[in-house]
Amino acid sequence: MKNYIVHDAWKVIEKGFFAQNNKISESLCSIGNGKMGQRANFEEQYTGATLRGSYVAGLYYPDKTRVGWWKNGYPEYFAKVLNATNWIGIDVQVNGEILDLAKWKVIDFYRELDMQKGLLSRSFIAENGKGEQVKVSSRRFLSMRESDAGAIEYSVTALNFDGNLRIEPYLDGDVFNEDANYDEKFWTEISKERSAAKNTGLLLMETKKTQFRLATAMQIDLLKNGQNHNIELKVISRDKYVSNVYQTEIQKGDTVTVFKYVVNAASIHFATETMVEDAKLILDRIHKKGFEILLAEHIEKWKEIWDDADVIIEGDVAAQQGIRFNIFQLYQTYTGEDERLNIGPKGFTGEKYGGVTYWDTEAYCLPFYLKTTDAQVARNLLIYRYKHLQKAIENAEKLGFKNGAALYPMVTINGEECHNEWEITFEEIHRNGAIAHAIFKYINYTGDEYYLAEYGLEVLIAISRFWKQRVNWSEDKQKYVMLGVTGPNEYENNVNNNWYTNTVAKWTLQYTLDGMEKVKSKHPELFKSILKKVKFNQFEDTDEAGAWFDIIDNMYFPVDEVRNVFLQQDGFLDKIIEPVTALPVNERPINQNWSWDRILRSCYIKQADVLQGLYFLENQYDMDTIRRNFDFYEPITVHESSLSPCVHSILAARLGYKEKAYELYLRTSRLDLDDYNNDTEDGCHITSMAGTWMSVVEGFAGLRNEGDTLFLRPFLPDQWEAFSFTIQFRSARLKLSIQHKTITIENISKVNVSLVLFDEKHIIPAGETLKQNIEGSVIAL
Amino acid sequence: MKNYIVHDAWKVIEKGFFAQNNKISESLCSIGNGKMGQRANFEEQYTGATLRGSYVAGLYYPDKTRVGWWKNGYPEYFAKVLNATNWIGIDVQVNGEILDLAKWKVIDFYRELDMQKGLLSRSFIAENGKGEQVKVSSRRFLSMRESDAGAIEYSVTALNFDGNLRIEPYLDGDVFNEDANYDEKFWTEISKERSAAKNTGLLLMETKKTQFRLATAMQIDLLKNGQNHNIELKVISRDKYVSNVYQTEIQKGDTVTVFKYVVNAASIHFATETMVEDAKLILDRIHKKGFEILLAEHIEKWKEIWDDADVIIEGDVAAQQGIRFNIFQLYQTYTGEDERLNIGPKGFTGEKYGGVTYWDTEAYCLPFYLKTTDAQVARNLLIYRYKHLQKAIENAEKLGFKNGAALYPMVTINGEECHNEWEITFEEIHRNGAIAHAIFKYINYTGDEYYLAEYGLEVLIAISRFWKQRVNWSEDKQKYVMLGVTGPNEYENNVNNNWYTNTVAKWTLQYTLDGMEKVKSKHPELFKSILKKVKFNQFEDTDEAGAWFDIIDNMYFPVDEVRNVFLQQDGFLDKIIEPVTALPVNERPINQNWSWDRILRSCYIKQADVLQGLYFLENQYDMDTIRRNFDFYEPITVHESSLSPCVHSILAARLGYKEKAYELYLRTSRLDLDDYNNDTEDGCHITSMAGTWMSVVEGFAGLRNEGDTLFLRPFLPDQWEAFSFTIQFRSARLKLSIQHKTITIENISKVNVSLVLFDEKHIIPAGETLKQNIEGSVIAL
Repeated sequence: MKNYIVHDAWKVIEKGFFAQNNKISESLCSIGNGKMGQRANFEEQYTGATLRGSYVAGLYYPDKTRVGWWKNGYPEYFAKVLNATNWIGIDVQVNGEILDLAKWKVIDFYRELDMQKGLLSRSFIAENGKGEQVKVSSRRFLSMRESDAGAIEYSVTALNFDGNLRIEPYLDGDVFNEDANYDEKFWTEISKERSAAKNTGLLLMETKKTQFRLATAMQIDLLKNGQNHNIELKVISRDKYVSNVYQTEIQKGDTVTVFKYVVNAASIHFATETMVEDAKLILDRIHKKGFEILLAEHIEKWKEIWDDADVIIEGDVAAQQGIRFNIFQLYQTYTGEDERLNIGPKGFTGEKYGGVTYWDTEAYCLPFYLKTTDAQVARNLLIYRYKHLQKAIENAEKLGFKNGAALYPMVTINGEECHNEWEITFEEIHRNGAIAHAIFKYINYTGDEYYLAEYGLEVLIAISRFWKQRVNWSEDKQKYVMLGVTGPNEYENNVNNNWYTNTVAKWTLQYTLDGMEKVKSKHPELFKSILKKVKFNQFEDTDEAGAWFDIIDNMYFPVDEVRNVFLQQDGFLDKIIEPVTALPVNERPINQNWSWDRILRSCYIKQADVLQGLYFLENQYDMDTIRRNFDFYEPITVHESSLSPCVHSILAARLGYKEKAYELYLRTSRLDLDDYNNDTEDGCHITSMAGTWMSVVEGFAGLRNEGDTLFLRPFLPDQWEAFSFTIQFRSARLKLSIQHKTITIENISKVNVSLVLFDEKHIIPAGETLKQNIEGSVIAL
Repeated sequence: MKNYIVHDAWKVIEKGFFAQNNKISESLCSIGNGKMGQRANFEEQYTGATLRGSYVAGLYYPDKTRVGWWKNGYPEYFAKVLNATNWIGIDVQVNGEILDLAKWKVIDFYRELDMQKGLLSRSFIAENGKGEQVKVSSRRFLSMRESDAGAIEYSVTALNFDGNLRIEPYLDGDVFNEDANYDEKFWTEISKERSAAKNTGLLLMETKKTQFRLATAMQIDLLKNGQNHNIELKVISRDKYVSNVYQTEIQKGDTVTVFKYVVNAASIHFATETMVEDAKLILDRIHKKGFEILLAEHIEKWKEIWDDADVIIEGDVAAQQGIRFNIFQLYQTYTGEDERLNIGPKGFTGEKYGGVTYWDTEAYCLPFYLKTTDAQVARNLLIYRYKHLQKAIENAEKLGFKNGAALYPMVTINGEECHNEWEITFEEIHRNGAIAHAIFKYINYTGDEYYLAEYGLEVLIAISRFWKQRVNWSEDKQKYVMLGVTGPNEYENNVNNNWYTNTVAKWTLQYTLDGMEKVKSKHPELFKSILKKVKFNQFEDTDEAGAWFDIIDNMYFPVDEVRNVFLQQDGFLDKIIEPVTALPVNERPINQNWSWDRILRSCYIKQADVLQGLYFLENQYDMDTIRRNFDFYEPITVHESSLSPCVHSILAARLGYKEKAYELYLRTSRLDLDDYNNDTEDGCHITSMAGTWMSVVEGFAGLRNEGDTLFLRPFLPDQWEAFSFTIQFRSARLKLSIQHKTITIENISKVNVSLVLFDEKHIIPAGETLKQNIEGSVIAL
């Protein structure tokens, strides 16, 4: 836990140089535009602690798996997002001495990420051993409009000396991943170009094995005291490196400013043959626009996002900063324009988890994008999985399944599994359920029923086939059982009949059968062609639907009949059940203080498991059932996954446990800003950020929908003055504002909206506002 | 499976050069003397497939652990036995061309391991591109008498040419382990000596981190046509390498013979300050003895071993070769003189499993040594664990246990755990039971009750304390349960209430309490001091014995009430139970053809689990119980551990399933000789060799004892003419011979022996013989 980031409603501010926290600040102040991202590394050389990271979405490397003990079925590779060409680098020398904040005295350091503008800026005074002081200011951004481009403004002022200034903006492709399994470098150079006359440089790199290419082109403008300046110039190039070197004599008070315009053209977006020329064309265009226009366009684009997605919290600037940080990071990571991309747990803010996709996307990110932007974005997240269906079928085949059964990978980048812990890779199969449920969530929220016919049903059938093969008939129980699984609570491994997994399996089977009925009646021709394509009833089973019905009717679910709660898994009641509050403080978090076997044997739950099921399928259970299960499980949950508190917070809000809901919300609201888990230096917890947003919108505001009806059950945490946000719902947009005594719902769209506030149905005509006091009486409409 | 080793009663013979099998032959023809071992690598250079291996017992290196995903509690290091200085090397050049069987044409290759003599010999003719042929013959052994010494005789004859012969015997410390986790070399050179005049060389090496030293000294004698020969000589030395080079002109028909005498003095046996001088003294002594005397002494020592330990099988030379190979390898690996040493699964025949100690020692090797040699040998195996008790307590503490509870490591070399698979390292805790049971086995067989007071009780108390803390009270079952374990059947992980583990836990508690009573009454003062030393009743528990009694009385054991069998673990009956015979042949072994999760979910059993308990504690169960459990479990056992068939074979023999007993015996009887599992190239399965021996002695001969009474229930497999062996039992020695119609028991000791043959009690006076026909009637006494 740290507390050095200045609280501010729109900005992440580091005031004074916290060298020991530099890697944390680098994560926090990362910038990105959905296509690429860049940690807040310094432009100039820095020999202190740093994790250099520049990531380009969709470029990955299949790093050979490294394990202690091999298990059959492990994938050969772990595909990971690559640290790519360092495009920000600008080396500075003052009178022959390299500027390096690890070696110079640092005065008035200031780093700021302006989230409203998507702009990272930094300024400081640095003093060398001779007392020579320079003032440096920089600004940089990755354009949300020109999505292959970034730009840097970097100024150096001689404060108290005359002398020589050498500035070397460069592109460096000789980078590595700290998490490389075999200390291998992943990139080779294909070609380079440089021109002293045109102040340009270009580096064309290629990944080993995958042969992805990345053309990085730069153009430099140099000003002295605001005037274009021609100074001594040479180009340097060596393997994987190209730079322009500017050398000039300066007097006290002189300011030299570099504008570095950069294009990163990746081969997943450009044809290999033309990508170098394409990069140069874009570079020429952005250079002509210039820094200020580029920046203005970029801010404009951010304004559009904020108009839709902002959450305003009044009376709590820390909370305001926290929620905006989350929204900002999510939109930096994924903008939804490219269905080949997805959301890694660390986004573009670090290497950890390899930039790959987990079920986090379906369970946590999807609801965020559904409600804050066009349906197309969420739809692209679904199509990402649709496109991986064949790989998911192959993945299942590798594990011994057949006949078109699909097991989506735990962790993937291109559809192939790349995780390698047997208890997760092979057993945490509930992910298949989350992927099926995402289809439901999308259709339920958007009303886009045709998606089922177009893409959804194929995925659902393949997943249902997996569940069919994954259960087995227990002669002993005279029920279908599911053996050897790991539920969402990863503090249990290889358990039998995890209630959540059995539940989502049964749900998937039913939803698939329902979906088949729907498609059959609405799109009979399409339905026939789907059945033909997937060879329905043509493998060993001649009555697949019949087999699924049988499982639905005869699935086993463990229960605690005394407490009348669902049981997390078979045998759970053999454990000693003691609340988390009984644990000594110095033993928490248990994942850092207990051996793994002790964790496994304990009753303690890492993240929502039974409760995840009650959250997903809330409408199937009455409040008493939810309450009994919440009351049993929450007290034994240690919330040691950042994905845990939000689900509990939402359920607590639903149950009227307002303080609990707020307490749980707090746990992740500033997870990264306060470095709550001492791991932000590895990158930010991007996917869990969506969970915090959900705590506010689904929790405090109590927003949910069934078909085209919205439900709201809002309350205001005591600690706040008010909160408000806008949501997209089908063709409507609503602006909700929750204050201590009143709730205001503004229909800012052109269609009427029907909704149920608390338990009362309202229709808010287009352009009208519903204002109601918290007790329920309507103040105005 | 291979079949290139010639069947012979006393020899392992490779006739003709099977280059593709060279690593297998290197394993099979390994030589050792308990203190060190050497794979059957060629003396001369060989660029073909080879695993060079020279191992010195007790010298290890803590190699930094490498895992894919770290779990709390994993040890930082994996201590492994080291490939040490290559002492066998003799490079040969003929007219400037290096002799290399991978490059020369090989004619009449013959490799032979004479198990009676412990002598490896080899001969071949090799022809180079010019048609020049040399005949090479070599013999080598590691002396069982001079246990730090080895000797090589190596002759080269020019068959069809005149020319130059260059011979370079060397010591090379620049060796590596193929299984090094970080491709690191483990040895550094401390010093070297060489003398052209004295034909000697010496290399003093030291391991990194552990600072073990190994002084290897050699002395060379060179003969030409049987005469001492002074020829051109120089010494070569470079880092970690020293050699003498002999160069001479030879004529067709000339034979040059090198005798290489070597001493490997290790710092665990010699003082660091004097070890170099010690090595030279020994070298001088063995050199003076000369090759033939050294060899004769060595053979003499092997004769003593064979007199005690041989098993003679008549009418089946393959079986005869198989059983002798096993006995030979076991005695090469461990002679029982040093309680700091133990038996690695591969002995000195390969790197795999790092030469470390598993529960194999207690479960399989101990009975072999108990019955074939002095009790001191088995006792030393027990003291090995006694000396590791403190480390076992620390190991338990690392996992969260306390108050003197001990968890012996799954895998160790110095008492510290070095394994790192959570499901094994943390959960396969039944090993603790095997270590406790070994104490029982030793005392029961030898009658050495005092061992309990001297060493055993401390270990038993510490293990009982572990069980006490490892179980927990289940409110649901109103019984003590043991959650999250892996039984001997490693095809199940993290199960609850593994019947075997619960059984050995309860047994340990009872045996500890019984042992305490015994020591208390027989050695009251010693008893008091033990209690004081272990702080009995002085931690949180004030009534440790009371708590143990409570667990004994209330331990939960899963059962199948329908079949009336013990249940391997909770929930086992949820599996689909189908016999192994239902598996398609191409899916076996399942550990090579099925994904890990499929294996886990299946009913298939890797090695005896419930049946291991019935074997260990046979006298607690009636034959019907054993039969029901055998009939249920054996058909679903895939025997994919080499430790599996023997236990089943013994139980089958006991149940009168003679064909089954023989079939199961066959599976491991020639496991390595026929490379049954395609893995002998990594080394031989040393510990499972004891299991095969047990199949014969405990299975076919039906030998067991309760206290000082021996029980025998022999039968002769139909495929054999007869089998006979000698056993050591307390102060008696018996020679048993089982033929088709008669059983002969010769008491070759000076004491009377009482035994129960089939169900009839006999006393055989010293020097007398009992002869009885197989139906039970005594023929003669």
